[in-house]
Amino acid sequence: MLRRVLIANRGEIAVRIIRECRDASIGTVAVYSEADLNALHVMLADKAVCIGKAPSALSYLNMENIIEAARGTGCEAIHPGFGFLSENPEFAALCRENGLIFVGPPAQVIEKLGNKAEARKTMKAAGVPVVPGSDGPVETVEDAETIAEQIGYPVLIKASAGGGGRGMRVAENSGEVRRAFEDARLEAEKCFGDGTVYLEKLVRNPRHVEFQILADQYGNVIHLGERNCSIQRRNQKMIEEAPDWCLSEELRARMGADAVKAARVAGYRNAGTVEFIVDGDRYYFIEMNTRLQVEHPITEMITGVNLVREQLRIASGLPLEISQQDVRTRGHAIECRINAEDIFRNFAPSPGHVGFLHFPAGNHVRVESALYSGCDISPFYDSMAAKIIVYGDTRLEAIRRMRRALGETIIKGVRTTLPIQHLIMYHQDFLRGHYNTGFIENNLEELISIYEAAGGRNESIQ
Amino acid sequence: MLRRVLIANRGEIAVRIIRECRDASIGTVAVYSEADLNALHVMLADKAVCIGKAPSALSYLNMENIIEAARGTGCEAIHPGFGFLSENPEFAALCRENGLIFVGPPAQVIEKLGNKAEARKTMKAAGVPVVPGSDGPVETVEDAETIAEQIGYPVLIKASAGGGGRGMRVAENSGEVRRAFEDARLEAEKCFGDGTVYLEKLVRNPRHVEFQILADQYGNVIHLGERNCSIQRRNQKMIEEAPDWCLSEELRARMGADAVKAARVAGYRNAGTVEFIVDGDRYYFIEMNTRLQVEHPITEMITGVNLVREQLRIASGLPLEISQQDVRTRGHAIECRINAEDIFRNFAPSPGHVGFLHFPAGNHVRVESALYSGCDISPFYDSMAAKIIVYGDTRLEAIRRMRRALGETIIKGVRTTLPIQHLIMYHQDFLRGHYNTGFIENNLEELISIYEAAGGRNESIQ
Repeated sequence: MLRRVLIANRGEIAVRIIRECRDASIGTVAVYSEADLNALHVMLADKAVCIGKAPSALSYLNMENIIEAARGTGCEAIHPGFGFLSENPEFAALCRENGLIFVGPPAQVIEKLGNKAEARKTMKAAGVPVVPGSDGPVETVEDAETIAEQIGYPVLIKASAGGGGRGMRVAENSGEVRRAFEDARLEAEKCFGDGTVYLEKLVRNPRHVEFQILADQYGNVIHLGERNCSIQRRNQKMIEEAPDWCLSEELRARMGADAVKAARVAGYRNAGTVEFIVDGDRYYFIEMNTRLQVEHPITEMITGVNLVREQLRIASGLPLEISQQDVRTRGHAIECRINAEDIFRNFAPSPGHVGFLHFPAGNHVRVESALYSGCDISPFYDSMAAKIIVYGDTRLEAIRRMRRALGETIIKGVRTTLPIQHLIMYHQDFLRGHYNTGFIENNLEELISIYEAAGGRNESIQ
Repeated sequence: MLRRVLIANRGEIAVRIIRECRDASIGTVAVYSEADLNALHVMLADKAVCIGKAPSALSYLNMENIIEAARGTGCEAIHPGFGFLSENPEFAALCRENGLIFVGPPAQVIEKLGNKAEARKTMKAAGVPVVPGSDGPVETVEDAETIAEQIGYPVLIKASAGGGGRGMRVAENSGEVRRAFEDARLEAEKCFGDGTVYLEKLVRNPRHVEFQILADQYGNVIHLGERNCSIQRRNQKMIEEAPDWCLSEELRARMGADAVKAARVAGYRNAGTVEFIVDGDRYYFIEMNTRLQVEHPITEMITGVNLVREQLRIASGLPLEISQQDVRTRGHAIECRINAEDIFRNFAPSPGHVGFLHFPAGNHVRVESALYSGCDISPFYDSMAAKIIVYGDTRLEAIRRMRRALGETIIKGVRTTLPIQHLIMYHQDFLRGHYNTGFIENNLEELISIYEAAGGRNESIQ
């Protein structure tokens, strides 16, 4: 196994990885920006190196400083977590050039899968279903119009380099193609420095279902079942559950096999996630995320497989310990991402001082967070404050446990998304499992007003 | 299932039971003494009823007030937790007389097993091995001397009504029998109001190994494997692990079968624990605890069986869902009981204000506690502040995780036993699993001095 790892991240995921390293007797080096001097990940690591000023571009995205910190502290490997440099092929390559193991897939795999139009082409060629669309980049408005006519409206125009819903526009009919095409191009250029776009049929309000993949360097590829991540606000996941309540065994088997196929044709290595959208009994590959996923704990809870441990093992050159037949899921797990955001102000970030903190605990409740009583939530970084994860022998038990866990949570000093997630645990459509990616759009206003009518107190949610 | 339960306890076990009820949609009523007005269990329950002044005798042991609270709030059942009234047959009978379900075995079973000399006789008759000794109470010093000669020195003179190491004396040779007999009698009279004593051969420094039992009212009795609880200071457990590292499969099977036999002959119902001492490959029944055990979470972690849930199910009249063949253990679990005690002052209770609190979290770490940042640890009750429980796929992984978890724990304002437990996680004999009930006596002084030499700071433990 690796002996010392630098964790090129912050917040709860840095804490998660540092804890895992400690549990495996692997030394840890944290990096931090000046704003994160008092951050939990800095306190928990064996060593910590300041890599720059608060803005990410000057610290957590500063490749040279991070590489230097790793070399200067005798690390063998860098774990990028998620976000920041985790899907940056240049950084993965730079690690290698500097004799450091990048805990993730090889640079060229990240690059190939990071280009969504390219990934789509690869998957289609391999027989993995993809949403009907242009096979590759679309150069002109006229081409876009022609293809849209062929596949039928509505269509999506998407940035090849995209992610997080940016560089993406809908055209409902032929009259909207020009505007959508130009807007998507401009935003793609602005966000990713690459204006290349492609075209896809819009599947309205599908379910978002993703499969967790593990692949070692000896050609072993397995999947660990799926996660339903359809509760999203503006493409940001808010609640995830595993397994997907609505998936038939037959569909699960086909999608799992296709997820493994997708990883194989991409030459994948380490942990990754194959994302599909599901519409009735049809499913389509949308992208493969070449990193650990925020919602990975729910898969850990139902499979008993420790994903960060497996990442470290694979990076160490060890083969997978389990084969596909060994993977057994048990029970049901749900995660809520509690963001420090003001639900009454359009989910604007709500940084600040956490004067009092109390997290839920007990049997089958897991909290992943970098908060502590008296800490500050920085305005410089993403707003995720905590992940509350629960397990239940049944889905209903997991839902009840989540209600209880969220009811116990107190984060004073900042506003959070918790009340919305708490209310969703009582929502009839969620209870029945009848929900898709349109859930938040269709229900958010009502949920906020229920909370408002209750006087904005969490305790009043029943 | 039950619809509303009163929890006749306080502290972490009250919180554990309230959470479990909530997870099962069972209503909860807490009781509290005036000193516990701001206690966590009071905040978490649906309702809370004050039952008297701070001393236990005036509140948590006040049977009438508790029964009245249950009746007044429409509860169907009372869960006694452990300690307080949990092993009081009079209370169990009183519940029944008042039409309330006592979550535990019937009163006569508690009574029969609570009398240790009686329990010993029952087990011996059933063929469960017991330590050689008097078969029943010993009335005179002369009888004691005769029996001691027969079974050989050293011998233990023990209170029939005893528990927690009180009313117990050792005689190393014939010259010491009179003194030991009289002292044990006096202490038994004083502590339990019953001076009856019996005699047993003293097995010096055995391992303490106990089996978890579940029994329903339909005659189904299963065991959930064993726990090694040999790390004890003055008969108070400090660290427990499951499974027992040193137990052969053959011995485990025999002891498990005897534990089930013990529960059967006692007519047992609900969750209970059969305690054995183990000396090489010989084992002897010592007692059966007729209640939930403090260390029950380690069994939950390796079996996946939710013991409090099972207690509530059994009390509801439901049959066991699993049979002995369904019981599978996986991995290894360890619990440390963190007491608010001053290790430099002979483990004197260290109550006070907890100014800052930070518990460990993450994958496979479970904390059971009623503390929160800013709470007070009361001088009126036992000193347990938190149970830190970890799981690992292997024993070594569990030990490493416990090191990490204890290293993360901060409880400011009171002194705790944590440094000792933390150091034990690095002790060669513990690592090898070579330890017995003599471990603390033989090592405590050295452990305290190591901690003292390190400046009394937890961070210096490596």
